[in-house]
Amino acid sequence: MEAQLKLAKNAASAEFESARRWQRIGAPGPRAELYDQKARENAQAYAQNIEAYIGTISVPVGLAGPLTINGNSGMAAYRVPLATTEAALVASYNRGAGLISAAGGCNARVVSEGVSRTPMFAFSNVVEAAIFADFVEANIDGMKDVVPQVTRFGRLQSARTVIEGNHVYVDLRFTTGDAAGQNMVTFASEAVLGFILDSPPVKPRYWFLEANLSGDKKATGGSLTSVRGKRVIADVVLSRKLIESTLHTPPERMVEYWSAGAIGGVMSGATGIHGHYANGLAALFLACGQDVACVAEAASGITRMEMSDDDHLYASVTLPNVIVGTVGGGTCLPSARACLDLLGLAGPGHSVAFAEVCASIVLAGELSIIGAFCSGDFAAAHRALSRGEPEHLERGHV
Amino acid sequence: MEAQLKLAKNAASAEFESARRWQRIGAPGPRAELYDQKARENAQAYAQNIEAYIGTISVPVGLAGPLTINGNSGMAAYRVPLATTEAALVASYNRGAGLISAAGGCNARVVSEGVSRTPMFAFSNVVEAAIFADFVEANIDGMKDVVPQVTRFGRLQSARTVIEGNHVYVDLRFTTGDAAGQNMVTFASEAVLGFILDSPPVKPRYWFLEANLSGDKKATGGSLTSVRGKRVIADVVLSRKLIESTLHTPPERMVEYWSAGAIGGVMSGATGIHGHYANGLAALFLACGQDVACVAEAASGITRMEMSDDDHLYASVTLPNVIVGTVGGGTCLPSARACLDLLGLAGPGHSVAFAEVCASIVLAGELSIIGAFCSGDFAAAHRALSRGEPEHLERGHV
Amino acid sequence: MEAQLKLAKNAASAEFESARRWQRIGAPGPRAELYDQKARENAQAYAQNIEAYIGTISVPVGLAGPLTINGNSGMAAYRVPLATTEAALVASYNRGAGLISAAGGCNARVVSEGVSRTPMFAFSNVVEAAIFADFVEANIDGMKDVVPQVTRFGRLQSARTVIEGNHVYVDLRFTTGDAAGQNMVTFASEAVLGFILDSPPVKPRYWFLEANLSGDKKATGGSLTSVRGKRVIADVVLSRKLIESTLHTPPERMVEYWSAGAIGGVMSGATGIHGHYANGLAALFLACGQDVACVAEAASGITRMEMSDDDHLYASVTLPNVIVGTVGGGTCLPSARACLDLLGLAGPGHSVAFAEVCASIVLAGELSIIGAFCSGDFAAAHRALSRGEPEHLERGHV
Amino acid sequence: MEAQLKLAKNAASAEFESARRWQRIGAPGPRAELYDQKARENAQAYAQNIEAYIGTISVPVGLAGPLTINGNSGMAAYRVPLATTEAALVASYNRGAGLISAAGGCNARVVSEGVSRTPMFAFSNVVEAAIFADFVEANIDGMKDVVPQVTRFGRLQSARTVIEGNHVYVDLRFTTGDAAGQNMVTFASEAVLGFILDSPPVKPRYWFLEANLSGDKKATGGSLTSVRGKRVIADVVLSRKLIESTLHTPPERMVEYWSAGAIGGVMSGATGIHGHYANGLAALFLACGQDVACVAEAASGITRMEMSDDDHLYASVTLPNVIVGTVGGGTCLPSARACLDLLGLAGPGHSVAFAEVCASIVLAGELSIIGAFCSGDFAAAHRALSRGEPEHLERGHV
Repeated sequence: MEAQLKLAKNAASAEFESARRWQRIGAPGPRAELYDQKARENAQAYAQNIEAYIGTISVPVGLAGPLTINGNSGMAAYRVPLATTEAALVASYNRGAGLISAAGGCNARVVSEGVSRTPMFAFSNVVEAAIFADFVEANIDGMKDVVPQVTRFGRLQSARTVIEGNHVYVDLRFTTGDAAGQNMVTFASEAVLGFILDSPPVKPRYWFLEANLSGDKKATGGSLTSVRGKRVIADVVLSRKLIESTLHTPPERMVEYWSAGAIGGVMSGATGIHGHYANGLAALFLACGQDVACVAEAASGITRMEMSDDDHLYASVTLPNVIVGTVGGGTCLPSARACLDLLGLAGPGHSVAFAEVCASIVLAGELSIIGAFCSGDFAAAHRALSRGEPEHLERGHV
Repeated sequence: MEAQLKLAKNAASAEFESARRWQRIGAPGPRAELYDQKARENAQAYAQNIEAYIGTISVPVGLAGPLTINGNSGMAAYRVPLATTEAALVASYNRGAGLISAAGGCNARVVSEGVSRTPMFAFSNVVEAAIFADFVEANIDGMKDVVPQVTRFGRLQSARTVIEGNHVYVDLRFTTGDAAGQNMVTFASEAVLGFILDSPPVKPRYWFLEANLSGDKKATGGSLTSVRGKRVIADVVLSRKLIESTLHTPPERMVEYWSAGAIGGVMSGATGIHGHYANGLAALFLACGQDVACVAEAASGITRMEMSDDDHLYASVTLPNVIVGTVGGGTCLPSARACLDLLGLAGPGHSVAFAEVCASIVLAGELSIIGAFCSGDFAAAHRALSRGEPEHLERGHV
Repeated sequence: MEAQLKLAKNAASAEFESARRWQRIGAPGPRAELYDQKARENAQAYAQNIEAYIGTISVPVGLAGPLTINGNSGMAAYRVPLATTEAALVASYNRGAGLISAAGGCNARVVSEGVSRTPMFAFSNVVEAAIFADFVEANIDGMKDVVPQVTRFGRLQSARTVIEGNHVYVDLRFTTGDAAGQNMVTFASEAVLGFILDSPPVKPRYWFLEANLSGDKKATGGSLTSVRGKRVIADVVLSRKLIESTLHTPPERMVEYWSAGAIGGVMSGATGIHGHYANGLAALFLACGQDVACVAEAASGITRMEMSDDDHLYASVTLPNVIVGTVGGGTCLPSARACLDLLGLAGPGHSVAFAEVCASIVLAGELSIIGAFCSGDFAAAHRALSRGEPEHLERGHV
Repeated sequence: MEAQLKLAKNAASAEFESARRWQRIGAPGPRAELYDQKARENAQAYAQNIEAYIGTISVPVGLAGPLTINGNSGMAAYRVPLATTEAALVASYNRGAGLISAAGGCNARVVSEGVSRTPMFAFSNVVEAAIFADFVEANIDGMKDVVPQVTRFGRLQSARTVIEGNHVYVDLRFTTGDAAGQNMVTFASEAVLGFILDSPPVKPRYWFLEANLSGDKKATGGSLTSVRGKRVIADVVLSRKLIESTLHTPPERMVEYWSAGAIGGVMSGATGIHGHYANGLAALFLACGQDVACVAEAASGITRMEMSDDDHLYASVTLPNVIVGTVGGGTCLPSARACLDLLGLAGPGHSVAFAEVCASIVLAGELSIIGAFCSGDFAAAHRALSRGEPEHLERGHV
């Protein structure tokens, strides 16, 4: 009863704060669009996800698929919600999803997991730094023990030291259950630091909870052989006939494109080798309540295409940094919940499958865009779809 | 009259298509959330921005600022709408914005502009490739002439060839007016290719309109000395007193953090040196109808902090890849228009100022997060705000 | 007469200084090896190439080739001297050279040239920096004019500004005739700085003649689309029959290796895509009096292998940073002169051809090592040759 | 007796082979220089280090130091032999060595060791690849057991799998005693592969002994947090007075240079943050019989300079890839042995100390060149020394 009252009071208070902000702003047009009735009603629902709330924006959602995936839990066909305002994006991913499904589906596997925080400790010289690093590496068990005191799901996997001059970085890597887990690893690292700083062999001059080695919110070369969140791979074999009928290009041309695009990307200084992971990931993350800023790190990895021995096309995508969750963060907000429900992947137990969907839709997008560059359809499709010509969608030329 | 009829018919048709999709899907819960009355009414408005439309998602928006900027058009104070579901994000950017404004504002300047498409032409050997490259470089004027035939705003700036083996990549760089311009440069490049392929000295074996050297949708090292969209810089000088009272740390500690974080980032293989550009950019792009996938490329650059000669803190951010617009793309959709209106930056003539806001809010975020790591407040602030403790916001400890 | 006397006096003085050093050191064994009669006699010859001279080391030289090259000046077959102490190196390059020559030779072309110095100017803020950068870009003609006053061969090609925060880097790119030219561009840049600082629109707070953007002595990603020294490419088409008889592997396997090795290299964070450019370049640079430290930058680039339409193997190497000369530096010292004479490339007019030899021998090395990994001969060849088993060389299995 | 006869026969044979080569070449000038009496006498000595031997080149050696180092085995002062033909190099390193020694020496520590080979195994799809990777990770003990059968000194430390698409790379990391160990790890990896391929759970379609993930002969970003050979760090604290009297610049200016140079390097796409590691390393490697091609990988790392709390300058260098040895390879050849003897570091038990000398001389070089850029002496010193003006050396302005 008391709890209900408090909730009601909080809701009233959240709505009141927003209204007061709009009084100061005084822009009736924007207010009508952003602070509509639904936005007012949901003010309290967003209280743990935003500050200085003034309403909501609307982003259109399109549906790609069904996309058939042979994942860790068996075969499944997914309808994939993609939120974007960029013409041709949904059409292109839909075309790729159709291609994959027509081939019987793609394989997808999460091959490793882990989220890092990387504190740094500063000493007077490398001699002290080396002593401290030895101490940290010798006390991993004690560090592991303190973590369950502050988190139910987070567990410390490893603590690797990297010495640079008189600085010791510690790569604390955690598992985070079905949550993306960035806050979880922050709190857990704070506990680990408490343990380390309780009786170090040399007292650091100063330290920081995070010193930018973790790859948080950034594409990093180091992650290509490692993981941030989930390292997930999808691959598929497509027959020559299917490619020629769907993408209107011989598979050899796609391998030539892959090679030219790989080298183009390497010469540009990109992280990994790929075409446009960010398009599909941003749209899927946005629809499903993931942290959209994590597109910065998730949109890196390796696409590979080659002719198989029996004259088919093999295509794969490897994404080392898919930092996603099906619990926590924005996943329980109304829109995200609806989109995760469409996938059948809301709540605990679904983060691995969700990561597999991420990789598989990215594979669909790589196939579709490379096909478009090879057949010469790319510009025409964008011209038609950005003018809203619906028949183009039917033809699937994207 | 005819036009009105067609519009009404299209609107009815768009709504009908979506309804039909939901019949197939048959998920009443998600349908109620995603396909509410507003989503139905706006179906036609989104027709040129999405395919296979099934409704809209809602994302909460918070307001940071006012943020005072000394930009190309003089001083201005902006209220900055940020759409996100990540607790503490708006609070942190708001704190940084307050700090900058209290110091009298930051400088911001767009120092170069340009968007590239990078077609590739394949030959038999390097001898042919070199002949072709010479031809392209000698015919820049003819290439420039064909562009106005297909775009009102796009203009070809330069065409630089890069030879790799028997492949010639051509970096076609365009100005794009006040639009982000990705489609514009696609269509313009198609026209340029038509010109080039009309009478080349050696016929290419095959070619692609884009071969992945342009940095589209990817953080690229090459862009650090170049530009994709707008290269924009913001800097500020903050007094010791202001920093100590607002961020609760001496400025020297922030310089030490910068150095440790710079090296942490370099060792991680990040593109440039920065903390978390993606957070602010994703939230601002999302609110203002920008292509959120472009966070992948925009979230790279250089943050620098150092003590100035007179014992103040100098801080700057340099973003080479801010690919944004105030016309075209998603900028005219209802929510985006409302948020751009809040900034006073909707429509033609505002893309430079909008890029300056991007850099300035990113500067605010770098100052706030580094302050939080230096004072030790980072974990505590995230703990409080992700639990919706409003008093924490008032204290501004993020 | 006077000159001769001075020379004799200098020679005596150089020898005397070295002898005095050995008195202090007092290590008779090392002295006998390093400071033998030839080293004593040449003391004066080395006076402009070394300080604190104590003698010479000897490095064994092997001969690879003949290596047939279709270069800018037509076809030529080169005997290539390689100085190394690593078993199997000469044998492996020799095998590749034989393969290329058996195919009728490779193509080689220098496709661009230029050596940079990159001074940096510091200002109070980005506003001043942008004004200064505009000034520099507008005064390229005046900057070009001062260069011939300090160098006979160096010419300023371009001056591109890169602004980061309140810092302006200027990429001064020069042509350097047939010299590698690092000292030349240093002196020329000093003259350019004198011009710039004579009447700048804003006075810089401080400046540095070089601020590490030039890529001097470092592999840099930025150079992959640019040049440092000479950008030189070699390519060749090899028939299936030739590959199978020489390398004992089908060409398709080599393409598979290329793909796997390309991705291995990218995941490792290498600069470009290649196998072991450094081996051949270090050995050739060392033999021919080039700056061996420049291997750091020269040993980067792109190797590519693919099946051609007519079932042959196409292979290419692209080296953007071959900073070499046939005049100046160490090229006129006795051993270097002898090795350049063996190539027929000593003195003015030969730097382009020498760069073509660099790329072509590197191509030979890539073909040979990839062949060895594909056939499974790699370990066996190294085992035999590091034990000095000469018959292995005859079989050419490296 | 038989062995002696065989040796004599081999020596005669090696000499005979070289003479026969010169007959074919017929270049009397080069022959006189390269194939002098000493080269003839040493023909057999080089038999396991070179093929197609035609003689030796001579490279001048200068002496830097004494350089005082507080290493793992206590304090020591080293005379450092540097082989180069680049004017000003020895002078500059000598100046830095004097500065360090005047400050009481630098600290140096090897903080980790390991040399990798990285075979790759190809499968049909990611499902098979994941099964194979699990198998490899579970059988590390068996893999360790086979290594001592083929090498006395090499030991397998770890075997980490990296899956990309349907490919499994295995990072086999070994310790190699006092040898650089590249051949050792090749042979050991061959044995490990034999073990793995004896009964794998899925048979790979094909595999390669090395697939380019190891960083062999290449600067790699991944190594910045890892190791190839020895990860070695040197650091020193220098008083303001010492810097101002020796380098003629205030220490704050050096920190400003460091920051500008760090960002210049990052924007260039260099691997790590440094000035010119390659200069000192190439000269030291060459003098001491190391594999000079390994400069490509060794010349990467992190230089850092900052003001210490008590107004001194802290400077450090971190080199992750110092792949050196004091036994094996070229270290037992006459010149190399003489130079290692000068250092007191020939033979077993000295590789750690030799790596510490590498890092310390590199630190000397970074201090000297940054000092020269700050004081404005850089161009003047190079001008004087490349003209052989000895008095400049005395003034130490390099």
